[in-house]
Amino acid sequence: MPNSTDILIIGAGPSGLFAGFKAGQLGLSAQIIDSLPHPGGQLVELYPYKTISDIPGIPCIEAKGLVTKLMQQIEPYNIPMHLGERVETMSFHSDKSFELQTSAGSQLICRAIILAAGLGSFNPRKPDLPGIQHYENRGVEYAIRDIEKYRNKNLVIAGGGDSALDWSIQLSEIACTLSLVHRRSDFRGNPATASSVRQLAANGKLQLLLNANVTGLGGRDVLEYVEIQFPDRSFKLDCDFFLPLFGLSPKLGPISTWGFEMDKGCIRVNPTTCQTNFQGIYSIGDLCSYDGKLKFILSGFQEAAIAMHAAYAYLNEGRQAKIRYTTD
Amino acid sequence: MPNSTDILIIGAGPSGLFAGFKAGQLGLSAQIIDSLPHPGGQLVELYPYKTISDIPGIPCIEAKGLVTKLMQQIEPYNIPMHLGERVETMSFHSDKSFELQTSAGSQLICRAIILAAGLGSFNPRKPDLPGIQHYENRGVEYAIRDIEKYRNKNLVIAGGGDSALDWSIQLSEIACTLSLVHRRSDFRGNPATASSVRQLAANGKLQLLLNANVTGLGGRDVLEYVEIQFPDRSFKLDCDFFLPLFGLSPKLGPISTWGFEMDKGCIRVNPTTCQTNFQGIYSIGDLCSYDGKLKFILSGFQEAAIAMHAAYAYLNEGRQAKIRYTTD
Repeated sequence: MPNSTDILIIGAGPSGLFAGFKAGQLGLSAQIIDSLPHPGGQLVELYPYKTISDIPGIPCIEAKGLVTKLMQQIEPYNIPMHLGERVETMSFHSDKSFELQTSAGSQLICRAIILAAGLGSFNPRKPDLPGIQHYENRGVEYAIRDIEKYRNKNLVIAGGGDSALDWSIQLSEIACTLSLVHRRSDFRGNPATASSVRQLAANGKLQLLLNANVTGLGGRDVLEYVEIQFPDRSFKLDCDFFLPLFGLSPKLGPISTWGFEMDKGCIRVNPTTCQTNFQGIYSIGDLCSYDGKLKFILSGFQEAAIAMHAAYAYLNEGRQAKIRYTTD
Repeated sequence: MPNSTDILIIGAGPSGLFAGFKAGQLGLSAQIIDSLPHPGGQLVELYPYKTISDIPGIPCIEAKGLVTKLMQQIEPYNIPMHLGERVETMSFHSDKSFELQTSAGSQLICRAIILAAGLGSFNPRKPDLPGIQHYENRGVEYAIRDIEKYRNKNLVIAGGGDSALDWSIQLSEIACTLSLVHRRSDFRGNPATASSVRQLAANGKLQLLLNANVTGLGGRDVLEYVEIQFPDRSFKLDCDFFLPLFGLSPKLGPISTWGFEMDKGCIRVNPTTCQTNFQGIYSIGDLCSYDGKLKFILSGFQEAAIAMHAAYAYLNEGRQAKIRYTTD
């Protein structure tokens, strides 16, 4: 029995969450799907602690705090969220419904789609190492989900940003050995965090390998060692896990093959409705493009309102939603 | 020496206040003018205690609380506000500047104008009584500004809404006598407030004249009495002040004569810039109209951002503002 809803919102960033609120307010059923395991999109994934000061009526808030507020606002409408799932395929039925398959094997039927996928799903930046694919999930991992699997193991982390620094600190507490490899002598990440990492190295809790690169991987079936290259020497370092934490890079993924009219990586919409070149499919936030488009979070909120009112009319034979004013 | 600024924002409601914030953020000088003696527009004048729940990231706030937040947000930019003043005339100079005269006699020079005047300035609904104009400011007053002038005076208030009820309670404490005249036996205003008024009447603190109308005014030079009409009788009631508090009705005022392309009382704009049919003059919020226009406060915020970015480019030979993202 497929899961059915009026509106499927693809993307749980600020625009997608507010679209969920507007759907609830207008009495439409909605579900939200996002490839990340948590709501918030870029706000949580890229800059959770950044202070935001341009949301009207909110003089100052941390990015992740804004997500908390948006989740509170959407909460009364009990909108199902499919987190850690990605839409893989979409087909259009003769009754004007859409059928979507997700990466988790779920089937979703909806009557309208709001694309709020931002810059796309965030994919790890992978190092260009010969044979690395063979070792993926056999010792090479790009994201840390469950820290217990690293307890009493020998770990090699590579990277110089916050992610590499934060995880080095946290995993050094439970690992048997931990080496942090970075191609420079200074770190890109938070100076206070970098200082903590250096202190842990001075206390023998982890090993810092600076001005060094991982240049090779080895092991019969699973990963057994990495090759470390310094300017003047190289050596093999035994390990159970190699964790290259070089950050995330966004990719639009399968949606880019649906046939949308594109404009510099964004989907072209009619600004009065946010509808794409397909009837019943709308695009909002960073993913949409039109003349005069601004890239503020505020703009995504307004586009969510525009798209949801247009979708309401589309699903109700042209009738406008009764809620027309903030005071309604 | 005239007062000069980049942008003059007409209207200190939510859209106008946020336009001030955006001007400050983009490094433009701005001033705000509003005919009301306080910022907030409709939010303060019409529904200060109404709960608003559709501002993104703010699950629940009183209307006047939202104004407080917007004032906090605008505060770092020290934007001069001309409150209790109205723009009376506008002229366009050959150097593309605008010159405006206000009701307080001030002269303002600016290079762009943002019209955020909402439904217009709020004018008192006046009762249709013969000769009432003669007694205006000679005993007849439509708004209470300084309560001390009513101390130990004989007052007649007319009306059945919150304003009439609230002022009856407050002024009954200082008046010599106070009569509240209402054409019905039940009140439109807050039931708790109405109940307090009835209690004060029961305790002899004020006189309730229900199912009655004021049908005439009298006095040689200043107001000396009002005529009270009941269904079955009428009488003269001596008083120093007659305060008809029948609410406020919005009027666009002189702006409506400037030659804008209008659409059902709103000013037609290009939605990609919010510019009116005059270069350098923009309209946002409830006062603007375009295909797909939504009447939410959120929409006014987004229009403020659009207009201010367009004004920035207009004032800077087409160059776009450097601030392009929430994270800038």
